[in-house]
Amino acid sequence: MKALEDKILSEGTVLPGGILKVGSFLNQQLDVQFLREVGEEIARLFRSDNVTKVMTLEASGIAIATLAALSLGVPAVIVKKHASSNQSKEVYSAEIASFTHQNTYTAAVAKEYLHATDRILIVDDFLACGNAIRGMKKMISDAGATLVGCAVAIEKKFQGGGDELRAEGLRVESLAMVESMTDDSLTFTHA
Amino acid sequence: MKALEDKILSEGTVLPGGILKVGSFLNQQLDVQFLREVGEEIARLFRSDNVTKVMTLEASGIAIATLAALSLGVPAVIVKKHASSNQSKEVYSAEIASFTHQNTYTAAVAKEYLHATDRILIVDDFLACGNAIRGMKKMISDAGATLVGCAVAIEKKFQGGGDELRAEGLRVESLAMVESMTDDSLTFTHA
Repeated sequence: MKALEDKILSEGTVLPGGILKVGSFLNQQLDVQFLREVGEEIARLFRSDNVTKVMTLEASGIAIATLAALSLGVPAVIVKKHASSNQSKEVYSAEIASFTHQNTYTAAVAKEYLHATDRILIVDDFLACGNAIRGMKKMISDAGATLVGCAVAIEKKFQGGGDELRAEGLRVESLAMVESMTDDSLTFTHA
Repeated sequence: MKALEDKILSEGTVLPGGILKVGSFLNQQLDVQFLREVGEEIARLFRSDNVTKVMTLEASGIAIATLAALSLGVPAVIVKKHASSNQSKEVYSAEIASFTHQNTYTAAVAKEYLHATDRILIVDDFLACGNAIRGMKKMISDAGATLVGCAVAIEKKFQGGGDELRAEGLRVESLAMVESMTDDSLTFTHA
């Protein structure tokens, strides 16, 4: 998505440790009108896949997931971080390692919002190592639901998670794919 | 908002400890098409107030804030929970006590996304004691920005936070105002 690449180049900054900061439109501040276009592009890519629900992991993916769900005409399901372990009978859960925060946490979704008949599209803002997606994939599998695919705004391709998931047969669509990133340059690759 | 009251009556449940569970459409699962109407109603109420940004506290207010901002044609700013204290020079922060989770945390927003010229509308899913709104009000004041008002989906009026904020001169608009709540009944009041 050319408009997203342009936005990353004009507003993004690279921080030490391989962090791409796009807080002005995607995380801390949301350029909602622009993200509406991102949501419509995601919906366009998965329009014919009979998606019944969009799923995302709180918190930074919620805005895009909401807008993709709006365009697809389906609900969104929010996977919660830091679930209580005593909920285990009523939730599907997974351990997820965070690249940004360098920790591991238990994420969970209530069983009542994920059914075997669901066809799930995972939506997130970033794809780096793919840990969040892998965790959601496990929950969807535990529920016996179908994972239709995964749509992310920005894939950091050099971290390998996207290609690993593709090698496992998952359809992964990235609206901007960062090939390499240094303090003073950032290059995109096109699928 | 009659449609929201109907939705609460048909899908909400009351949990022990004064918790109103509306996970099927407002929190864990988002009925995005319905929340789009909620966002439009919020925008209608504040259409003539020259709002420059919508502000919310992560995570459960993000969807409504995104959709209200979409209808108002402005960006949304997300206040982060659990901020690092070493960011204090670059953020506006406040201590917030959580009614739901029975703890206190430091919330913060980066200074670059909140300016003295901003006219802020706070949007959230719930208003109980008003602690989250009070914290955001402090950050907005610290930035020298203008707080135009506050719009919440559901106010638990019996917890008093909304009326306290109104008594301080803040405009608070609640789309559904719960007057009282027990295991088997829930009544609304109309302003």
